[in-house]
Amino acid sequence: MVYDSIIIGTGPAGVSAAINLKVLGKNFLWFGASSVSEKAAAAELVRNYPGLPDITGKQLVWTFENHAKGLGTEPENKLVTAVYDLGGRFAVAAGTDTYECRTIILCTGVAAAKPIAGEEAFLGRGVSYCATCDGFLYKGKRIGVLCFDKAFEHEAEYLCSIAGKVCLMPMYKGCSVSAPNAEIVMKMPKEIAGGMKVEKLVFADREEAVDGIFILRASVSPSILLHGLKTDGGHILADRQCRTNIAGVFAAGDCTGRPYQYAKAVGEGNIAAHSAVEYLAENK
Amino acid sequence: MVYDSIIIGTGPAGVSAAINLKVLGKNFLWFGASSVSEKAAAAELVRNYPGLPDITGKQLVWTFENHAKGLGTEPENKLVTAVYDLGGRFAVAAGTDTYECRTIILCTGVAAAKPIAGEEAFLGRGVSYCATCDGFLYKGKRIGVLCFDKAFEHEAEYLCSIAGKVCLMPMYKGCSVSAPNAEIVMKMPKEIAGGMKVEKLVFADREEAVDGIFILRASVSPSILLHGLKTDGGHILADRQCRTNIAGVFAAGDCTGRPYQYAKAVGEGNIAAHSAVEYLAENK
Repeated sequence: MVYDSIIIGTGPAGVSAAINLKVLGKNFLWFGASSVSEKAAAAELVRNYPGLPDITGKQLVWTFENHAKGLGTEPENKLVTAVYDLGGRFAVAAGTDTYECRTIILCTGVAAAKPIAGEEAFLGRGVSYCATCDGFLYKGKRIGVLCFDKAFEHEAEYLCSIAGKVCLMPMYKGCSVSAPNAEIVMKMPKEIAGGMKVEKLVFADREEAVDGIFILRASVSPSILLHGLKTDGGHILADRQCRTNIAGVFAAGDCTGRPYQYAKAVGEGNIAAHSAVEYLAENK
Repeated sequence: MVYDSIIIGTGPAGVSAAINLKVLGKNFLWFGASSVSEKAAAAELVRNYPGLPDITGKQLVWTFENHAKGLGTEPENKLVTAVYDLGGRFAVAAGTDTYECRTIILCTGVAAAKPIAGEEAFLGRGVSYCATCDGFLYKGKRIGVLCFDKAFEHEAEYLCSIAGKVCLMPMYKGCSVSAPNAEIVMKMPKEIAGGMKVEKLVFADREEAVDGIFILRASVSPSILLHGLKTDGGHILADRQCRTNIAGVFAAGDCTGRPYQYAKAVGEGNIAAHSAVEYLAENK
């Protein structure tokens, strides 16, 4: 089946978009790498979200989540790794499945990191974002695992259980993965290099030969997610109606730029949902 | 003294702007024709303001108002009748006083009505928005009073007590003003006409000789309020940062266009406040 819309991201913008699509009676899916935005929950005290004075980030996220639940919608804990523009509709790769939809609402937050040199070029040729999807391709082989969050350690462990040799690069303190075939390197590669496929990771001081690299982060950078999407300085370019340069694709929240604020994200989620519904009505 | 900012309007966008300016430690005034937005309070059930599910418009407005009050800010019940661009700062006529500020945040809502033909041309030459300010000028004279809301009947009554003859045009049902010198006409004039000053009101079927006309509505149309402000189809033109075409003037909420939504208005109030603070920092 073809869904009306797929929302990518579980922060305040994603919640607002989901609440509005639900109220407007649309048939949609809602994906995120975790059940709620970890970043949104980290705020100690939020004083400026109108209507909920002096609330912690955790309480606010809980309140948002419950609002959505109360309307009968919850995000699915799946990482979206690619969006393909099929002309008039889109295919979305989430976890190990693919779904079709007519509009996309990107609420991917601020990209925590810029793509690594070579990441985009070798996508599908040795660069993967999903251990469950592509792990089996590297049975007994040498891989790099670049892990941005403790939450993804179970994926790193799974990869260690399959691969022959693992160069594990945790980008946080206190990594607790231990496997006899894993060497921990506390550095980010400067480049992913190779010929037809990935052959090595280039560090400042040395190189590591690998057959592939898994990049485990909460979200995939929007420009990598969707080919041709216009961005500027890491932000998705969107107009006042939250329309991107691709017809049927909308963006809301921190991914569209400053100010990085709950109210701004919630407002844009609302606008993006309304714009998507308008687009659906005009393009039946 | 020169204030950092003046917020015009008490709907959700105005509340959000005020909360943010307060949290950001700015020195501002906040004006509106009523203590809270009447339109915002009219909604029977709001389902899509994230964090406050299934709330009535009245409850939501009460919650917003209390949030602002808790931070120590409340709107002043004054109608803003004109904003003058003095180059680098602004003069704002509110009620019978004038205030100076460096930035303006317009949260004036959707203009309920288009300006009447001649309204802008005769402003200050027979057209007035403020009974208290200009009423005394029409002692014993003939005036028109175009009243858009029951809330302004006390102003209409005051004008009847001063003027010689009043053509009272209530734009709602159940007008309870009665004065021996007032004739009630349930029609809107098509045009305000005259030479150097207002001389008559032109109706579809007849004309009424007057020396002036008072237009009593909750807000003055933004293009009349501030000369040179760019609008399109009744909406103020603003960019994604809520900046208008006039440096130092920002706009948020329904006055900038659709969707007419609480969350959108609140989001833009947040953005406008942040943009104003940025502008203040850059233009010391």
